[in-house]
Amino acid sequence: MQTKAYQLIAWQQPPELRAVDVREPGPGEVLIKVGGAGTCRTDLNLMGMPAGAMPYTLPFTLGHETAGWVEALGAGVTGLERGEPVLVYGPWGCGRCGPCRQGAENHCERVFELRSHGGGVGRDGGLAHYLLVPSSRLLVPLGSLDPRDAAPLTDAALTPYHAIKKALPLLVPGSTAVVIGAGGLGQMALQLLSALSPTRVIAVDASPEKLARARELGVPDAVLADTQTAAHLRELTHGRGAELVLDLVGTNETLALAAQALRPRGQLTLVGLSGGVLPFHFFALPLECQVVAPYWGTLPELMEVLALAEAGRLRMTVERFPLERVAEAYQRMREGTLKGRAVITPHG
Amino acid sequence: MQTKAYQLIAWQQPPELRAVDVREPGPGEVLIKVGGAGTCRTDLNLMGMPAGAMPYTLPFTLGHETAGWVEALGAGVTGLERGEPVLVYGPWGCGRCGPCRQGAENHCERVFELRSHGGGVGRDGGLAHYLLVPSSRLLVPLGSLDPRDAAPLTDAALTPYHAIKKALPLLVPGSTAVVIGAGGLGQMALQLLSALSPTRVIAVDASPEKLARARELGVPDAVLADTQTAAHLRELTHGRGAELVLDLVGTNETLALAAQALRPRGQLTLVGLSGGVLPFHFFALPLECQVVAPYWGTLPELMEVLALAEAGRLRMTVERFPLERVAEAYQRMREGTLKGRAVITPHG
Amino acid sequence: MQTKAYQLIAWQQPPELRAVDVREPGPGEVLIKVGGAGTCRTDLNLMGMPAGAMPYTLPFTLGHETAGWVEALGAGVTGLERGEPVLVYGPWGCGRCGPCRQGAENHCERVFELRSHGGGVGRDGGLAHYLLVPSSRLLVPLGSLDPRDAAPLTDAALTPYHAIKKALPLLVPGSTAVVIGAGGLGQMALQLLSALSPTRVIAVDASPEKLARARELGVPDAVLADTQTAAHLRELTHGRGAELVLDLVGTNETLALAAQALRPRGQLTLVGLSGGVLPFHFFALPLECQVVAPYWGTLPELMEVLALAEAGRLRMTVERFPLERVAEAYQRMREGTLKGRAVITPHG
Amino acid sequence: MQTKAYQLIAWQQPPELRAVDVREPGPGEVLIKVGGAGTCRTDLNLMGMPAGAMPYTLPFTLGHETAGWVEALGAGVTGLERGEPVLVYGPWGCGRCGPCRQGAENHCERVFELRSHGGGVGRDGGLAHYLLVPSSRLLVPLGSLDPRDAAPLTDAALTPYHAIKKALPLLVPGSTAVVIGAGGLGQMALQLLSALSPTRVIAVDASPEKLARARELGVPDAVLADTQTAAHLRELTHGRGAELVLDLVGTNETLALAAQALRPRGQLTLVGLSGGVLPFHFFALPLECQVVAPYWGTLPELMEVLALAEAGRLRMTVERFPLERVAEAYQRMREGTLKGRAVITPHG
Repeated sequence: MQTKAYQLIAWQQPPELRAVDVREPGPGEVLIKVGGAGTCRTDLNLMGMPAGAMPYTLPFTLGHETAGWVEALGAGVTGLERGEPVLVYGPWGCGRCGPCRQGAENHCERVFELRSHGGGVGRDGGLAHYLLVPSSRLLVPLGSLDPRDAAPLTDAALTPYHAIKKALPLLVPGSTAVVIGAGGLGQMALQLLSALSPTRVIAVDASPEKLARARELGVPDAVLADTQTAAHLRELTHGRGAELVLDLVGTNETLALAAQALRPRGQLTLVGLSGGVLPFHFFALPLECQVVAPYWGTLPELMEVLALAEAGRLRMTVERFPLERVAEAYQRMREGTLKGRAVITPHG
Repeated sequence: MQTKAYQLIAWQQPPELRAVDVREPGPGEVLIKVGGAGTCRTDLNLMGMPAGAMPYTLPFTLGHETAGWVEALGAGVTGLERGEPVLVYGPWGCGRCGPCRQGAENHCERVFELRSHGGGVGRDGGLAHYLLVPSSRLLVPLGSLDPRDAAPLTDAALTPYHAIKKALPLLVPGSTAVVIGAGGLGQMALQLLSALSPTRVIAVDASPEKLARARELGVPDAVLADTQTAAHLRELTHGRGAELVLDLVGTNETLALAAQALRPRGQLTLVGLSGGVLPFHFFALPLECQVVAPYWGTLPELMEVLALAEAGRLRMTVERFPLERVAEAYQRMREGTLKGRAVITPHG
Repeated sequence: MQTKAYQLIAWQQPPELRAVDVREPGPGEVLIKVGGAGTCRTDLNLMGMPAGAMPYTLPFTLGHETAGWVEALGAGVTGLERGEPVLVYGPWGCGRCGPCRQGAENHCERVFELRSHGGGVGRDGGLAHYLLVPSSRLLVPLGSLDPRDAAPLTDAALTPYHAIKKALPLLVPGSTAVVIGAGGLGQMALQLLSALSPTRVIAVDASPEKLARARELGVPDAVLADTQTAAHLRELTHGRGAELVLDLVGTNETLALAAQALRPRGQLTLVGLSGGVLPFHFFALPLECQVVAPYWGTLPELMEVLALAEAGRLRMTVERFPLERVAEAYQRMREGTLKGRAVITPHG
Repeated sequence: MQTKAYQLIAWQQPPELRAVDVREPGPGEVLIKVGGAGTCRTDLNLMGMPAGAMPYTLPFTLGHETAGWVEALGAGVTGLERGEPVLVYGPWGCGRCGPCRQGAENHCERVFELRSHGGGVGRDGGLAHYLLVPSSRLLVPLGSLDPRDAAPLTDAALTPYHAIKKALPLLVPGSTAVVIGAGGLGQMALQLLSALSPTRVIAVDASPEKLARARELGVPDAVLADTQTAAHLRELTHGRGAELVLDLVGTNETLALAAQALRPRGQLTLVGLSGGVLPFHFFALPLECQVVAPYWGTLPELMEVLALAEAGRLRMTVERFPLERVAEAYQRMREGTLKGRAVITPHG
């Protein structure tokens, strides 16, 4: 089958939309007709990396946020029907190490041996007409949702879900969670926090439009990021600080703000990858606060995210692009002019 | 001070409203002017018990669900102001054993030594003009709520909160919780489940009025208890069963229904005290289900319940009675004609 | 290949050692040359069941506790070498439902669809020269241990490990765990409790020999089961009771003893399948005790059990039998004359 | 009563042993005859602080690690006998905030209002003949242990216990815990890890004597701190890294080593206060590692530490000094010539 794929050919060079062959699925493999493939800011980081920074072999197709329909089953695959809509779990591990056996392939112990983190991150991903998935264990039946809308669940929703789930025991009634950055992942985080816990949620952003969007999503406490933010957060929490601060931006400034906004025994969770640094020492944060930078999410968590979406509790603004316009989608992401998540829909 | 109190004088005899003296608070003690004192079905059980069944010494004033205002402080008490509204945490332990030191005085290890479970259950309780509390550690500042409305938080809300909190890790997106019995505690449980977790909630009751009330509280899945209930629940959960069944009735029939309604690794939580028995054995429940009958709640949990109430997330129908009409309140509880929780308001 | 297997041919009839063909592994499958296959009391239960009690199709080979060497790999299987020693994880689920994706195939949601709980329990198991395993995900590399010794890790060690792991948060310093039944699983439980936690361990058994064995395993508190046991346990725990009681016998009497031996908020864990019943109600156990009957264990837990065995912290008495004498091994199990676990070693 | 106390009179000036009056205990208070008062490296930090760094009012008596005998009870105190040996829980909170109500007075929310962290840290502590404790809730009956030996349990054991307890769920069979610094707290940490979990423990220190001591305590893997340590740890863990690294030193170098020694999803726990900094960012540690600097411990944890000590599982080298020689003890701590913890025994 002669089809197209958006591939990284050389480090620090623009990817190219190239004609590629589609191979038949081997034993255990499944071929997916791509319904939607989300584009992600980490793709921009990846494109800009110097040779040798990542253990990947070029070329490979980008796109680590994919949903579609089962097109063909390799030998020995059971439990899936041709045409069935599925989510593709993004991190592809060895399937046999301890973390993989718990469904945490985002923490596979053989990443360096595999020279890949999954499709679109070392192996061929979803920015293509077809995606070959190495095992049926990486597919989650999508139920009633449309793959073109659902694709972002696999990263833009799963990543904040995983981050929040680690902190849930802290988010008791009377607690506060602060989300720094109310863009795409931030809007997802705001909805997830309200769905998963009784915590009071506060959104922080430098953009009044995003704060307005946060209010539409049911978060009345939306605070402008400026020199007074730390004081403002302290006041809103009656001087106590927040149990959880989720930093979806990740600059030196937002990390410093996060550290100030915490309550003792709170958790600072860094998700945004803007290269900021927090100098950690005993007095850097309120007593006994934890600092962590989670990575993606697990397969069981993806099933939970899907259940929330099916229950209508996660809304995401999606802007669709045909595969031919994928470069434009990334260009608009760079410029900050996207209205929501850009999802490539190769089959319309 | 000459005041009145509703006291249990003799086992299996009606309690009496008697004139009592109010003693000045000793060191560490606090005198509370009672704002509201809730009446509870367990009081009826208590009144009907034979001598010797409980380790309590008669007479004592009933009422284990109390809120009011600080009236006087014993020597050495700090951090409270006269006139300040407070909740009275109900289980009064020794304050020094392991459970008490974690705020779990409901599991004090010296109950039999103390010959009491708290005010109204072995020691003088809240169905009186004044209540003498043995330590300021048992009081929780009430904030902006009216003690006459807030009293039921200390048991009618705290008990299901404690029961639900034990099961929260099971209540992930996609899970189901079934509440059997949609009366006072049941309505609280329905609201708590929705506030605390993303679980889908199903209410079961034999009364169409209570099911209508459940729907008003935002629980569309309200199922009539009849011979088809087990099949109906199975259908609603797509054959999988529920992660949590909270049995607030507690007959043989509801326990058997609960066991059938569970999913493997689920939890059957018995709160209702109707004397039912579940014959437990390896095949009595789906694989690896847990069975537990929780008891009341902890002090930190009461603070969390209060935070939910302050946030407007717990509504309770309350019918107020003056202290003179306390016997009538219990009579109407027996008859099942109360509209909501009966709260005695000795000072109007 | 013409080989032998010990198969259940008809319900409530003795199994037979029959000549069977060995099929080549299909895609994803792995053929194991059996090193050791443990025999288990539940096999006796299974042999005695009436037709229709289990959803299995006859005939099938018995043996759900297997270790061996990789003999042949189906298409698409990677990460295993021919000749490599492996443990076979016993519960074989669908591999795609929520529990399977967490490595908890003991709780696969498609058991009734699969008509099997695993090899030896619905599908061909390990009492044979060769075992065909449906997926490489069910194999755990055995490291330096001999498959003939290691086979019992997959059930006789994994089952109590799983049971104990659920209760670990209760087993803080100062706590007590009581193990009723100091036979094979009991001896494993005693070692596991000491390795996993600082709890004080007490063994209860009716046999002085088994109590002596418990003492050899480092458990000085070994108590004879008689009419005074409940009082004795109460005394040993200074009147407080035990945080965990593990009942590996499971008669009415041991369950009643277990209920009496608990501390409030403790856990009664039923593992033994002697058909006993505990009538559960609010006053049946100390306040807020949990009752549960766990089932087998998870794949990640099996990896943890293996790590303990490799560290030399689990000793098990094993009596080896050639495949031809398998019926004798079960006969001696019935008579109670085995010295330890009987392991069948088809290849010597 | 005319007695002596070792008091901090002025910031950055040597403390003085002064004659002080002993006041009768007021309501709720308890007077303790000091048996042993441990000296701690944080006292040296405290002595060296500039005015204004801490919210304390001078003068106050040093010593935050105390055990002794009940000398006199204030009005309203029950449950303690004169002459009874007790541990003094060190962090003295308000007793009414959320953390205090869970026994976590180390995280009292009113520390700045109270202008104190406890006796010896803002209020009069244990380096004196008598110690006035503000509430009986802060005392733990000592059982059979001698207060002169037991004093260090309240900090030197409690602090690593608290740190380790947070990480216990990670410390499954097959895991590794690295302890950097095998001095007093380190030796305690090594014993605690072995008692509480099945983890493999590795000790790191620059002193061969301390490594020899670690081996005596049952930790064969004792590694010299040099330029090869990171590689050595990686080798010992078969390239995987450690689930927990406990840094009891806390320099830039040890923090960097700790970060390198971790396994993905591991925990870096900083206890040592040498002023080191770890620049935290997404790539600073293996994926999803948590970083935390715990503070002291809770009252329930102190009861657990005591249970371990009573069971003979914690050995600590203690060097006793009379109160008159307290300055010498600190001098030798500065010089590094103490053999174990220096405990002041004011009554011999």
